[in-house]
Amino acid sequence: MYELTNRYSTKTGQEIIEIDFAEDLIIPSGSNLLIGNGYLGYRGIEPNWEATEYSGCIVSDTYDKADGKWRELVNAPNGLYFNITVDGQPLAKFPDLASENESLRRSLDLRSGLYNSIRKFNLNDTNFILETNRFASLEQLELILANYKIITDTDVRIKIQAGIDKKCWDINGKHLENFKELNKDNLLSVIANTVESNIEIAVSSLIKIMDNSSINESEIVNKNNKYLLEFEISLEANQPVEFEQYMAVTHSNQRNNPLKDSQKIINESEKVGFKLLFENQLENWNKIWNKWGVKIGGSIKDQALINFNLYHNRIATPAYSERLPIGARGLSCQAYQGAAFWDQEIFNLPVYLYSEPDIAKNILKYRYHTLPGARKKAEDLGYKGAFYAWISGKTGKELCPDFFFEDVLTGRKIRNHFNDWQIHVSPDIAYTVWHYYQATGDIDFIIDYGSEIIFEIARFLYSRAHFNKNKKEFELIRLLGPDEYHENVDNNVFTLYQSKYALDKALKIYKIMERDYPDRLAVLREKIELKDEEIANWKEMAALIRKPEPDPDTDLIEQHDGYFDLEDTTPEVLEERLQDPGEYWGWPNGVAHHTQVIKQADLIQLFWLQPELFSNKIKEKNLDYYLPRTEHGSSLSPSAYAIEEARQGRTKKARERLIHSASIDLENTNKAVSGGTFIGGIHTAACGATWQVLTFGFAGLRFIEDEKNGIYPDIKAAFKPEIPAAWDYYQFNLKLSNQDLTIIVKTDTIIMTASEDNNEEINIKVGEEFVIIAPGITRKIRR
Amino acid sequence: MYELTNRYSTKTGQEIIEIDFAEDLIIPSGSNLLIGNGYLGYRGIEPNWEATEYSGCIVSDTYDKADGKWRELVNAPNGLYFNITVDGQPLAKFPDLASENESLRRSLDLRSGLYNSIRKFNLNDTNFILETNRFASLEQLELILANYKIITDTDVRIKIQAGIDKKCWDINGKHLENFKELNKDNLLSVIANTVESNIEIAVSSLIKIMDNSSINESEIVNKNNKYLLEFEISLEANQPVEFEQYMAVTHSNQRNNPLKDSQKIINESEKVGFKLLFENQLENWNKIWNKWGVKIGGSIKDQALINFNLYHNRIATPAYSERLPIGARGLSCQAYQGAAFWDQEIFNLPVYLYSEPDIAKNILKYRYHTLPGARKKAEDLGYKGAFYAWISGKTGKELCPDFFFEDVLTGRKIRNHFNDWQIHVSPDIAYTVWHYYQATGDIDFIIDYGSEIIFEIARFLYSRAHFNKNKKEFELIRLLGPDEYHENVDNNVFTLYQSKYALDKALKIYKIMERDYPDRLAVLREKIELKDEEIANWKEMAALIRKPEPDPDTDLIEQHDGYFDLEDTTPEVLEERLQDPGEYWGWPNGVAHHTQVIKQADLIQLFWLQPELFSNKIKEKNLDYYLPRTEHGSSLSPSAYAIEEARQGRTKKARERLIHSASIDLENTNKAVSGGTFIGGIHTAACGATWQVLTFGFAGLRFIEDEKNGIYPDIKAAFKPEIPAAWDYYQFNLKLSNQDLTIIVKTDTIIMTASEDNNEEINIKVGEEFVIIAPGITRKIRR
Repeated sequence: MYELTNRYSTKTGQEIIEIDFAEDLIIPSGSNLLIGNGYLGYRGIEPNWEATEYSGCIVSDTYDKADGKWRELVNAPNGLYFNITVDGQPLAKFPDLASENESLRRSLDLRSGLYNSIRKFNLNDTNFILETNRFASLEQLELILANYKIITDTDVRIKIQAGIDKKCWDINGKHLENFKELNKDNLLSVIANTVESNIEIAVSSLIKIMDNSSINESEIVNKNNKYLLEFEISLEANQPVEFEQYMAVTHSNQRNNPLKDSQKIINESEKVGFKLLFENQLENWNKIWNKWGVKIGGSIKDQALINFNLYHNRIATPAYSERLPIGARGLSCQAYQGAAFWDQEIFNLPVYLYSEPDIAKNILKYRYHTLPGARKKAEDLGYKGAFYAWISGKTGKELCPDFFFEDVLTGRKIRNHFNDWQIHVSPDIAYTVWHYYQATGDIDFIIDYGSEIIFEIARFLYSRAHFNKNKKEFELIRLLGPDEYHENVDNNVFTLYQSKYALDKALKIYKIMERDYPDRLAVLREKIELKDEEIANWKEMAALIRKPEPDPDTDLIEQHDGYFDLEDTTPEVLEERLQDPGEYWGWPNGVAHHTQVIKQADLIQLFWLQPELFSNKIKEKNLDYYLPRTEHGSSLSPSAYAIEEARQGRTKKARERLIHSASIDLENTNKAVSGGTFIGGIHTAACGATWQVLTFGFAGLRFIEDEKNGIYPDIKAAFKPEIPAAWDYYQFNLKLSNQDLTIIVKTDTIIMTASEDNNEEINIKVGEEFVIIAPGITRKIRR
Repeated sequence: MYELTNRYSTKTGQEIIEIDFAEDLIIPSGSNLLIGNGYLGYRGIEPNWEATEYSGCIVSDTYDKADGKWRELVNAPNGLYFNITVDGQPLAKFPDLASENESLRRSLDLRSGLYNSIRKFNLNDTNFILETNRFASLEQLELILANYKIITDTDVRIKIQAGIDKKCWDINGKHLENFKELNKDNLLSVIANTVESNIEIAVSSLIKIMDNSSINESEIVNKNNKYLLEFEISLEANQPVEFEQYMAVTHSNQRNNPLKDSQKIINESEKVGFKLLFENQLENWNKIWNKWGVKIGGSIKDQALINFNLYHNRIATPAYSERLPIGARGLSCQAYQGAAFWDQEIFNLPVYLYSEPDIAKNILKYRYHTLPGARKKAEDLGYKGAFYAWISGKTGKELCPDFFFEDVLTGRKIRNHFNDWQIHVSPDIAYTVWHYYQATGDIDFIIDYGSEIIFEIARFLYSRAHFNKNKKEFELIRLLGPDEYHENVDNNVFTLYQSKYALDKALKIYKIMERDYPDRLAVLREKIELKDEEIANWKEMAALIRKPEPDPDTDLIEQHDGYFDLEDTTPEVLEERLQDPGEYWGWPNGVAHHTQVIKQADLIQLFWLQPELFSNKIKEKNLDYYLPRTEHGSSLSPSAYAIEEARQGRTKKARERLIHSASIDLENTNKAVSGGTFIGGIHTAACGATWQVLTFGFAGLRFIEDEKNGIYPDIKAAFKPEIPAAWDYYQFNLKLSNQDLTIIVKTDTIIMTASEDNNEEINIKVGEEFVIIAPGITRKIRR
């Protein structure tokens, strides 16, 4: 057994095991032990838990706004409610940890998405063991299955209550109304509709006893917000009895007849049964782990942490749709509205880009489909083109409210400007469109979708910029960069260089289309009314946008205009200045706002994305400057520093920081509430970043463009691997232009194997060496 | 007796009389009863009051920064300390208002600057009357004289303690150190130096008994922060005894030997004596009242209010120097650092411009001398030219600290951006330079000083603007307009049009100099390295700067981008939202910041300054819109609304608002502290505005430029007088191109008299009529 954090351990690196159950940590443990499949997320709860225990089945594509509050995803009624009563005494929700007869052991198998719990308890002088297994089907996304095994030490008659708990844990108002209950041969269903968006949600639930006896003398009970089947059953001492429970949740955005379909899903599934369906589940998960799974030799602990993060990144991703975002908290709870931030492209997507590019394509298509929302936002704010929402739901309309946090000291709402000043999301999407094209060579996507996205972003940037006639430069005024503690800044370096990148690539794509697809370009130009003058404008702006340089004396790059004039202090000092631990540190008068303390990597985040911009020496100097001034108040931050540290060869520090980043959720110490706003749940961006720390960080993966490659013009990717001393090796896969490559980095060698199924050679640069790998061939290189 | 407010009355309109003495209002009454002369201000205190009673002799040109706090003027030791003791029992500071033997009646004669108090008290069973008269000499600015008359109802021996109280009332740290005391034949002196600026301050003090007996057996006592002459004297019942006390305060910024000079001033003055010097004082004051005094027929009360304001405007003005600012609180206390804001040009100066233009010239020369400070500020912030300090002391370097107010709810300092975003002070100065030239025709000033000021301002504006290439407009981004509750706004209409005005006039002056003074222009161009390209830039910016227009449907002009999107509410509603009465309402999270409630006139202030910009109908619509949304949280606000109401012919409302504006200090209800910062004292801008409500408001005075005047090309000024029903007439003087005109507006006629001393005809437009008035001629026109 290897301890991962003081709350979780692992045996094989493929599972996480809760060390001690703690009642006061059920918000984070419910998230950590989440099962899901990108369509829904079902929190890691025990069968008889309720809204008060943060039960939750968050369903994608169900945006609704309750009570005039935030638009967010719906938490569906819990169709896997299951409880035991003996002589009128129901099973308590929590074990009595003081009693030697009681315990609760829980774990999550990452390789199959299986929640397992073993609860020992004493009820009416009988000792029980209740084992729960539960998974969310990868095959049938609307389905969740549970298996319960009960064993007692005496003969006892128990009552089972199983069915649907209609009371949902909601963080911003009640989303469901007009509940209707239906019973069809003990298959229970509930339908309801969302209060504002009027989506019909259906949840069906079936309980089965697995001794082939059917349930006799059952009763349908509809009270206390629960719609349950109740029946009694006699248990013999030491004779286990098994139950299966099926839950299907469907809704009218995906189904014409949600109710019927939910019933049908269960009817079909229960014929196959839990056991076979779980075998199928294992196979399905195995396939995708083989695509983007990584291996760490020599550290079971690191392996488990990385697996945990990759698992959560995957179940957060609505891969089934090209019209849905990846939520910043995935489907682990309603926080952040089940909506995408820039995290989606920069943190969640890259692992897919090099392993399951169709998912990456889906994500970018989502940005295509939400162009109307982005155009509307730009127009509403007086700009042109596509200003993507800071918080983007299904339509791409801005979900981020004007007043996000509150000043907990005064109770006054704060007008945070994430929604109108944090513009870098648009160039970040453009950046990713280009990277998708680089990694896949998928010119069709560029022609059909990417070009429109990137042109509209260039258009937006031009309209958002201001020309400083005195300095003869385009400036970007009044921004939030990635570091959110400094709102209202000018010329944030990250935003400037990402914007320049977006403009450059828009021009590049324009050139490609002009040369190779003039007809398609003409159609698009007409569609979006693109004028010659605009292309000239983008060129001018790409050339004249401010390009901040390091100070020649100190090598330091100023994060934004005036940053170095701010009070120079550290997060530790600011901590002392807090009057309330729940205070928001940033705008407008939080403890960090007037200081150099930053919430998260900002300039260092730019180094991550555009490693070629500055020399290693410059990057090292700036890393050393910004690191002690960074609070890491965002889960996005540690990975950025880990990547730069890994690239700088500081492998020990980088591994420590990778562990920090990968343990953010398992540590269970994150604040669930900041500035009065619930922000708990799985930090999916940090999950996605894990893969990048390994590849972009340790392996030094980068993309070559416009570089003189001598006789190897096809080389697009380069490595310069480093490996921490704690590891024997690490292994990951890369799909480049549809060719698969497996890379193993050891202390002294790099072993690269091209898949037998490849149809082209892979050209790659390793260190200073150019390498060509034919299909099925393994190349070994000394480090 | 006419009641002005519930705290003050007047008999003749030439004085203010405190109705009831109130101990808890000694901060405002000390300011209201202030005497002064532009060099110093001596607060309206009783002879035995001390720092705890807000004693104060604020001295101009003594800027100092104590304890790393704000740079401000020094409050000199009080050389007019005077106290009476009987049998070891000293006179209490305050009368026992419950006793019929005790009272304190105080008044201020506005026509001579004489503080008078009659204090009745009982000490050791003797009833006393102590009458104090005190004035600050207009002839000898460093001198203040007091006369005391004591009368008792029994024979009594009293001890007099008279001399220098070294303990000053300081609001931001102790400014004086290294005190030295000297006695020269009972002429007491104290010297000390300022802690940071190292200015030597000397205060000398002399007490005399006026029965020609010299003081025998006196004693010099130096304790308890006081340096006093103590002596005894026997009083006979009902036989008044008089004392005279002289105080001189000098300092090393004005004198080579402050100590010697202060002694000399007293030695020379005491030979002349209080009586003769007061006759001279009356004469001196009379001369200047004749220049800018106004008369109100039919309302003693309104007359007194206006006189009170004109008096305070004058004693706030350091007319003796061309290198000193008018403080926002004058010399009534240390608040606002004895420094100038935009108030100086827009509120304080105009009365001088049309009556004592040399003072107006001095004020503008002050802006010339502080160009280095304004250039430095621009440079420090990355701009060019002259960005005048928001709070401007002697050097013109920015005195406004980054953190001005504090959040009283959390105790945290607020980073108000008065110092870097409130740019309109620069174009406001340019505006006034041009008006000075229009009113005086003083081209020499323009060549020697004004041109450099205005070119540097144009230069600044060009560097501060951003060009929006999409809209093909220059924008002004991130501003505070006059309405300080909305920091961080774009395209504040006031600032845009004032900036355009400044650019237009810079170009006009450039043209005049190019045509008539090419050599002087060449010298200036070389001096400030002015390039042809810059002139072209100003032209471009003047043409392309954003010029917001009224909405065609509503006629409303949006104060700044996005203003109409803010919550639409009223000051009364916001009042209810306060958690603490001392809260600052504005930036960053005050109750008004996210609403349409404004602190003060903003767009309406623009109407005041540029009445020709919009039609009367537009102005009326906007007046009606903005008025109920205005808190008048600044003393600058009511006058602006009064002017527009007067111009709109709403004379009843306008007079009420004039009274409101003119009573701001007399009402005694102003907060002395806001957002944790002391802001008490005389609101000198409102004082100066009084004259303008009368002239620019009721009389409709405006300047004609570029208008087709047919056969009257010389006409520059126009009237369109209105008169409130409460007045029989009002009278004021105007100096135009050095020609004096007296104007009397009656209900049915306007009587204009040109001075006999004039040497040119005066051309003027009254209503639609063109009038020519030769020297010594009176013209009467029907309204």
